[in-house]
Amino acid sequence: MTTPLHAVRGELLHFTADPADAGAAALAHLPDGLLVIDDGHIVETGPADTLLGKLPSDTRITDYRGKLVLPGFVDTHIHYAQTDIIASYGEQLLAWLEKYTFPAERRFADPAHAAEVASFFCDELLRNGTTTALAFATVHPASVDALFEAAQQRRMRLIAGKVLMDRNCPDFLADTAQTGYAESKALIERWHGRDRLLYAVTPRFAPTSTNEQMTLAGRLYAEHPGVYLQSHVAENRAEVAWVAELYPEARSYLDVYERYGQLGPRSVYAHCIWLDDTDRQRMVSSGAAMSFCPTSNLFLGSGLFDLDRAHELGVRVGIGTDVGGGTSFSMLQTLNEAYKVLQLKGQHLSAERAFYLATLGGARSLYLDDRIGNFEPGKEADFVVLDPQATPLITRRMARADTLSERLFVLMMLGDDRCVARTHVLGEAV
Amino acid sequence: MTTPLHAVRGELLHFTADPADAGAAALAHLPDGLLVIDDGHIVETGPADTLLGKLPSDTRITDYRGKLVLPGFVDTHIHYAQTDIIASYGEQLLAWLEKYTFPAERRFADPAHAAEVASFFCDELLRNGTTTALAFATVHPASVDALFEAAQQRRMRLIAGKVLMDRNCPDFLADTAQTGYAESKALIERWHGRDRLLYAVTPRFAPTSTNEQMTLAGRLYAEHPGVYLQSHVAENRAEVAWVAELYPEARSYLDVYERYGQLGPRSVYAHCIWLDDTDRQRMVSSGAAMSFCPTSNLFLGSGLFDLDRAHELGVRVGIGTDVGGGTSFSMLQTLNEAYKVLQLKGQHLSAERAFYLATLGGARSLYLDDRIGNFEPGKEADFVVLDPQATPLITRRMARADTLSERLFVLMMLGDDRCVARTHVLGEAV
Repeated sequence: MTTPLHAVRGELLHFTADPADAGAAALAHLPDGLLVIDDGHIVETGPADTLLGKLPSDTRITDYRGKLVLPGFVDTHIHYAQTDIIASYGEQLLAWLEKYTFPAERRFADPAHAAEVASFFCDELLRNGTTTALAFATVHPASVDALFEAAQQRRMRLIAGKVLMDRNCPDFLADTAQTGYAESKALIERWHGRDRLLYAVTPRFAPTSTNEQMTLAGRLYAEHPGVYLQSHVAENRAEVAWVAELYPEARSYLDVYERYGQLGPRSVYAHCIWLDDTDRQRMVSSGAAMSFCPTSNLFLGSGLFDLDRAHELGVRVGIGTDVGGGTSFSMLQTLNEAYKVLQLKGQHLSAERAFYLATLGGARSLYLDDRIGNFEPGKEADFVVLDPQATPLITRRMARADTLSERLFVLMMLGDDRCVARTHVLGEAV
Repeated sequence: MTTPLHAVRGELLHFTADPADAGAAALAHLPDGLLVIDDGHIVETGPADTLLGKLPSDTRITDYRGKLVLPGFVDTHIHYAQTDIIASYGEQLLAWLEKYTFPAERRFADPAHAAEVASFFCDELLRNGTTTALAFATVHPASVDALFEAAQQRRMRLIAGKVLMDRNCPDFLADTAQTGYAESKALIERWHGRDRLLYAVTPRFAPTSTNEQMTLAGRLYAEHPGVYLQSHVAENRAEVAWVAELYPEARSYLDVYERYGQLGPRSVYAHCIWLDDTDRQRMVSSGAAMSFCPTSNLFLGSGLFDLDRAHELGVRVGIGTDVGGGTSFSMLQTLNEAYKVLQLKGQHLSAERAFYLATLGGARSLYLDDRIGNFEPGKEADFVVLDPQATPLITRRMARADTLSERLFVLMMLGDDRCVARTHVLGEAV
């Protein structure tokens, strides 16, 4: 032990499996539990009455009794440079990019602007209980530096990358296949594996990269084992039609990425709405993951994600807020709308499954479940403290909730950032 | 003048027409305005710098500079007895009624329970800036008394009625055609037109009333000019199919209500999703109104309301939260999801139109626009004070919003009850 132990007391809840597979056995629930932390990592969890007597006398106790302690939320798709255009009116995907996204991203040529937004963004993630995110920066390498610096200061586990985009975009945001490759390579060398930071090769989406850039993006991903790749696929019908024109040789939109070597473990595709089962099977066999972004899919009128089919076929799935196409940094509000999207599909998202997806499911989709996502010994001690009495209505409704399942459902349907009483990163409150 | 005048200073915004028809001319906007109130009614509005010098020296000034002052929100469909089952898991309409609604409504046989819930319900409406609602009570006459008493204490303009339900429901919630008629008649005599309270004949929906009860509901509505009628129509596809079995003689679900004399001015139908244009035309020609309930329609997986078609044909439309099928008392959050429902339909809901629907549009759908809905002289002074800096994200985003339209859109997409700084009823803060 490097320091006195830290023990957090409260109602502990985490997952050891997907409740959609394992049912109630997937949950580990300690109504009065203790989470024992040493040097930012989890040593042990157990009932408070058993463990308290065994801990060294200098153990520091943080008391969250009356609150729920869950693993920190994992947001598998978000654009930090779109923080300031959240809630921009009136467009679907392609017009939205032109009208709002590209002008906003242009400002990230200024490193001071990037640093200021990155700082707010990381604080806002933490204020919402999100301790890990897979984030798009902009085409500017300094925008990646700014985000990693902000996350590093807060000791967060964060994955990000520089956007690759060399066609079908404004000149002021275009790189080239060669500069995009070289800049990404330099960023990987500078940031990947430094503290808790990881790099993601980030072609924005197939329409905005030339064949040459797509090839080099695949090469970056192949040349750097352990590096991630993030992009978008099959979000919007007009986008899908456009990709079919741009890549007539491909069987499908997803197939474009596969042809360029961009499917595999640690590749994460946002949206995945307009896929067929062949696409889904290719994601399973390659180890790629889907990011389900409900508030964005509703806000941009993109369509309805098919979670049951993804699960039946065994695709890895996490949840993304997709700010700024998404309308909230809150994972609770995002789960609310995930439930609604699936209701429109005639599918059911139980609260247990929802919180699994927001924690261990997200970690698995990012191949980070050896480090985060639940409270198993050895994991990094990132957690969120949820207040079940954050508003008059939640307090009242919670008093009438008989089961843990019902209480979790109330939190995801009625909760928001007010329910996040505290967020801890590597054991410490932020 | 009965009392010293009261003048409220702030950024005033209200509507004099539907922005979908009149464009910018529909908005009255005073960046630094004064709302002059005498004995609970609006006397005048105008720029503060013009009016301040003209007011009597004993005028009481309430200063809301930095905040937006809008007419109180009008919720055209809500179930007060479902307050405690908001966010109940996993069902679509018909199973949801059986599993959650009926057991919850059973408890309203106890007047003490009804009074306690009614009190919380009215407070929660006001906490969310809603000053008028059209509400379902339960089958128990005392449940109506409890709600009207709570609203009367708070001086609210509220419309409510006893549920009529004499088949396809548990025995413990059934009335009969005759008792339902007699009890409704007594409630009309006791409450309709008392203070600001108005009565609505309330057949739950066609499947739960016999032909005889449907006939008598139509008779109650015809016998009492000025009384309302509220029900549900075409919410869910299984429900529509069931109605077709129960009423094989009817052309459509809506036609059932028309056959029983239940369409007309001051009749309000919640949901109206699975209608055809003949139905919509019948609503126009009869003067009936639709209540669009987006959070409920998503939460219960019911379907997507067609606002553009309703508007093209000229149907009166208001917004309903539909708590407990809806997931929020907040009109702001309800407008957020209204926008999303319409995006999925390929339609656009501008912020101006959204706030129109939540205020004057709602008042028009209820034939109350001679009394509430905007700040015209003579109207009742119900208003909501919105804080554009309620959260760090809203504050930041608002600072980047250049136009009134954009600021309103930010409020409806990112706002919730935190944005409601204060609610005033008949001029006074509650």
